[in-house]
Amino acid sequence: MLELMTNSEINVEFNATQPAVKIGFIGLGAMGFPMAGHLAQHFETWVWNRTPIKVTEHAKMHGSTVVSTLEEFGQVDLLFTCLPTTTEVIEVAAQVLHGLNQDSRLKTWIDCTSGHPQEALLLASSLSQHGISFLDAPLSGGTVGAHNAKLTSMVGGSELALEQALPALKTFAAKIVRVGDVGAGYTVKAIHNVVLAINLWGIGEGLTTLSSLGVDVGAALEVINHANGRSFASEKLVPERVLTRAFPATFKLGLLSKDIGIAVDMVGRSSASTPMILLAHSLFKAAKSQIGADQDHTAALKLLEQWAGIELKT
Amino acid sequence: MLELMTNSEINVEFNATQPAVKIGFIGLGAMGFPMAGHLAQHFETWVWNRTPIKVTEHAKMHGSTVVSTLEEFGQVDLLFTCLPTTTEVIEVAAQVLHGLNQDSRLKTWIDCTSGHPQEALLLASSLSQHGISFLDAPLSGGTVGAHNAKLTSMVGGSELALEQALPALKTFAAKIVRVGDVGAGYTVKAIHNVVLAINLWGIGEGLTTLSSLGVDVGAALEVINHANGRSFASEKLVPERVLTRAFPATFKLGLLSKDIGIAVDMVGRSSASTPMILLAHSLFKAAKSQIGADQDHTAALKLLEQWAGIELKT
Amino acid sequence: MLELMTNSEINVEFNATQPAVKIGFIGLGAMGFPMAGHLAQHFETWVWNRTPIKVTEHAKMHGSTVVSTLEEFGQVDLLFTCLPTTTEVIEVAAQVLHGLNQDSRLKTWIDCTSGHPQEALLLASSLSQHGISFLDAPLSGGTVGAHNAKLTSMVGGSELALEQALPALKTFAAKIVRVGDVGAGYTVKAIHNVVLAINLWGIGEGLTTLSSLGVDVGAALEVINHANGRSFASEKLVPERVLTRAFPATFKLGLLSKDIGIAVDMVGRSSASTPMILLAHSLFKAAKSQIGADQDHTAALKLLEQWAGIELKT
Amino acid sequence: MLELMTNSEINVEFNATQPAVKIGFIGLGAMGFPMAGHLAQHFETWVWNRTPIKVTEHAKMHGSTVVSTLEEFGQVDLLFTCLPTTTEVIEVAAQVLHGLNQDSRLKTWIDCTSGHPQEALLLASSLSQHGISFLDAPLSGGTVGAHNAKLTSMVGGSELALEQALPALKTFAAKIVRVGDVGAGYTVKAIHNVVLAINLWGIGEGLTTLSSLGVDVGAALEVINHANGRSFASEKLVPERVLTRAFPATFKLGLLSKDIGIAVDMVGRSSASTPMILLAHSLFKAAKSQIGADQDHTAALKLLEQWAGIELKT
Repeated sequence: MLELMTNSEINVEFNATQPAVKIGFIGLGAMGFPMAGHLAQHFETWVWNRTPIKVTEHAKMHGSTVVSTLEEFGQVDLLFTCLPTTTEVIEVAAQVLHGLNQDSRLKTWIDCTSGHPQEALLLASSLSQHGISFLDAPLSGGTVGAHNAKLTSMVGGSELALEQALPALKTFAAKIVRVGDVGAGYTVKAIHNVVLAINLWGIGEGLTTLSSLGVDVGAALEVINHANGRSFASEKLVPERVLTRAFPATFKLGLLSKDIGIAVDMVGRSSASTPMILLAHSLFKAAKSQIGADQDHTAALKLLEQWAGIELKT
Repeated sequence: MLELMTNSEINVEFNATQPAVKIGFIGLGAMGFPMAGHLAQHFETWVWNRTPIKVTEHAKMHGSTVVSTLEEFGQVDLLFTCLPTTTEVIEVAAQVLHGLNQDSRLKTWIDCTSGHPQEALLLASSLSQHGISFLDAPLSGGTVGAHNAKLTSMVGGSELALEQALPALKTFAAKIVRVGDVGAGYTVKAIHNVVLAINLWGIGEGLTTLSSLGVDVGAALEVINHANGRSFASEKLVPERVLTRAFPATFKLGLLSKDIGIAVDMVGRSSASTPMILLAHSLFKAAKSQIGADQDHTAALKLLEQWAGIELKT
Repeated sequence: MLELMTNSEINVEFNATQPAVKIGFIGLGAMGFPMAGHLAQHFETWVWNRTPIKVTEHAKMHGSTVVSTLEEFGQVDLLFTCLPTTTEVIEVAAQVLHGLNQDSRLKTWIDCTSGHPQEALLLASSLSQHGISFLDAPLSGGTVGAHNAKLTSMVGGSELALEQALPALKTFAAKIVRVGDVGAGYTVKAIHNVVLAINLWGIGEGLTTLSSLGVDVGAALEVINHANGRSFASEKLVPERVLTRAFPATFKLGLLSKDIGIAVDMVGRSSASTPMILLAHSLFKAAKSQIGADQDHTAALKLLEQWAGIELKT
Repeated sequence: MLELMTNSEINVEFNATQPAVKIGFIGLGAMGFPMAGHLAQHFETWVWNRTPIKVTEHAKMHGSTVVSTLEEFGQVDLLFTCLPTTTEVIEVAAQVLHGLNQDSRLKTWIDCTSGHPQEALLLASSLSQHGISFLDAPLSGGTVGAHNAKLTSMVGGSELALEQALPALKTFAAKIVRVGDVGAGYTVKAIHNVVLAINLWGIGEGLTTLSSLGVDVGAALEVINHANGRSFASEKLVPERVLTRAFPATFKLGLLSKDIGIAVDMVGRSSASTPMILLAHSLFKAAKSQIGADQDHTAALKLLEQWAGIELKT
């Protein structure tokens, strides 16, 4: 049922079969900039960004084509969006749709935003009236994965549309999984992110308790990471971002909090009772308010530190 | 500050330096049986178990020596206990102490139970009056780790006592970390287990939500395990125990719930505020009551399944 | 800022000033039936219900006028709806709007459903295009309050519209408070209900703990109700519904759970972090699933009883 | 089973039947000072306090007798303690016991502290070896209740001991309920206080959400207090202490947090699963840390205000 692919065989496939595919890319942020760079290596790629300087820079660095207005994107075959929230996606969609005419060739819209499933359904419905297929294809792997073309993409939408988008997706994603119809990609992403948030907060609570009892946090983490309590959060995030006190803001607390809110909305539409997801929602929202939306998501643990009167470090 | 050791160089060290060390081992359960087996390969090992048949079996299989009464353990140098809870440890300790006399050579007591730090301090204090050092050295790695001698040991107690116990510990533990003074080993173990419980419950809530929304759980898990939400729980426990519906009871829900209770007690003695650990306590206690204390710890997710009216499977 | 009124001076006011006002009432459930009865004492009242037998019964008992199709309600001045959820309100609104014509005199729509604020805004917007003002006016006081005309009404909408609706509202509400613009009434109702749910669950947890420790629940409740821990839940709901094991289903668990869901949605649209409201959401949703949506809301405590293996009784 | 009494018939009873009863009172704090005052109206009352100036003041104001050392309390018949925590009770008990001799007449020890049930059992056991009965008799009603002799007393201990203590208890308590054996009084008090904490935090979350959505908090509270969501917290604490921004520190956040910790310990010894009590524990502990242990308990809601960026006021 699910499709698993790697980006190992990209070059072979592309040059032979899709020489004339034109790609559009809207949103050259920390993720989008390198993603569009990978695309530009294989396709004619048109780029747009709210802050224009990024566009010029991208064209210079990656040979992409600068697009001055969103209305021009009717001229590409596949259009990617990679924006902070669904709100921005809907805004740009209005302008792109406004620019469509008889000569437009846009067939597939791939949104890599960590978006809202319900709003995705509305957007997909609008696009389908113009013969455009929609895929929600949010990503995991962070800015490092974007640079290394090692992202994981969870895709919602039709198998046919995914087939269209696959060669392009493969330029930056090492793992591509279709998880269901439109909205399923966003849903899995939101749930993924709240699972990450729970793992992070859980190890945070554990280490905060140990620290306030005088146990060496580094030794405890060493044990946990050799044992069954380990997670990406305990193996990577805490040692690299928290214990170093670096908290590099590559994935902001405000965005994680937004994603958890989406997960909570989806829980509300499901039959599931999820006390831990809902607790995580409150805690990360409080952390966003107290620590700052622009801080790295791992800085949420500073709330635990404040409560306990300790600092997590080795 | 912390000591990290592997069991690679065991044989060399032992034969030369500690030819006459005699080991005692109380508690031949699913963990203790193979652990005492590893010890018996390198040391004269005396074993005792509440159910005597296990002792005879162990003697036959591993060449260990059957001990008929707990009072005899004064004749060993190092004594291991590996029992369900601290209550049983205190019971056997009373009898062992009762048997001590002028010829006793017992110097170090190593308790591998997932015990209670406060009670450990009392026990350590009693033992020290007889010149016996105490180490709390609970383990992670499960029955598989016990069989393969790949356990992780988190040790509380003096560096000197650990030095005494090290050659013996190395026969079954691949990673040995001293995390602090007496009680610190139990504390780290309890915190480790509640972190594991949180990771498990968190992925359980996420998958339950996805399942009840019609998203393919296997595809979602595939994505999560290639992304930053992954944990030992999502990579091993859920695929191997939950999705297979096997729930092999190698680590019982009742024992995990007990361990989380110890973690909550330690939170209470700390300055930390830990809403997620406390929530996990309630949830696993409710699961123990509704699903059964003798079920595997992963069967706690059946509570989530009941609430949502779904079953997690691929 | 807020308007507080009682229904003491109803009769005087009505006969003089609004002799010809015609009222419509949709939804003759456990609440709506007696409410429409009070209205019919003072106004010409047209009634409709999905199950027609209720309408005939109401006409016979209270002298109200039977309406055969929803399209006819354009002929009333004020229209009340009192339905399970906003979904039903939207359904009937479509039909009522469909029946509007040049002769229609409908000016004010008062919805007494415990509805959803966001959907209220959409409905209010549709109605305003037909010159109809909308008030969300959910109620507290239960079926007893409905029979005794002692309901509390929390109203969202314009002051002018409330002025129009006031004489009618006063026939069944003893306390009428305007809490803000359209949607504010629903919002306060949803928050009120989750506060009630928290009070109920809180005393439930307390008594369950005491009971499982062998403390007499009746004695404990006696103390609590003479002390500062008391609430409507501890003074009325628990003694009258839980300890008696009566659990009369006058306010169903499914509806309370739905209302808490609305509160959670509103929390999501606010800047507030509310871990307890979100926990209550999970617990009552789980109780709805395990105990039954059609049980009385107080039967949620049976979930606590199951977990603890006790029964709350004196 | 339970005994309910009022203090209406005190005077009659006392003068006739117990002319020579001598009372001791340790702890002249905000509660103890007026309580000992009521006792001194009816009995010869000896008082002691850590800060001696309170003792002199009490003697001057109420005619009580100053005791210079705790060892002298063997000379009273009934001894009351009213101290911050059980730790202080145990400290003074050691000194009182040290002073006992053949002429001692101390028969009943009544501890009004909000103490810990487990520690109470130890203390009761020590006292019984000296022929002294122990009652745990914590109070509800606050400093106002102490001044007006309108306290509620929840008593654990034997019926016989309570009978001895009753005339004295009646001087300051309007409601006296025996809730079980030694420890039951403390247990009910701890549960009472966490129920109060839940009610308070629940209304706090509700009002914070409404405030941050722009709903008038005063109007909403008016509605809630006329409806089923009302509680002592919503009717008294929030309007009088929070909305006024007065937060008078008559019952400190640090003490409430301590009491909730006792409740959590008792939950741990019971079969109950209580997610809301455990959540309250974390939240009030965090509030104690962030807002201050010496603030009034209602100031815990300032944590919610900080998270939401609003202030609760009318």
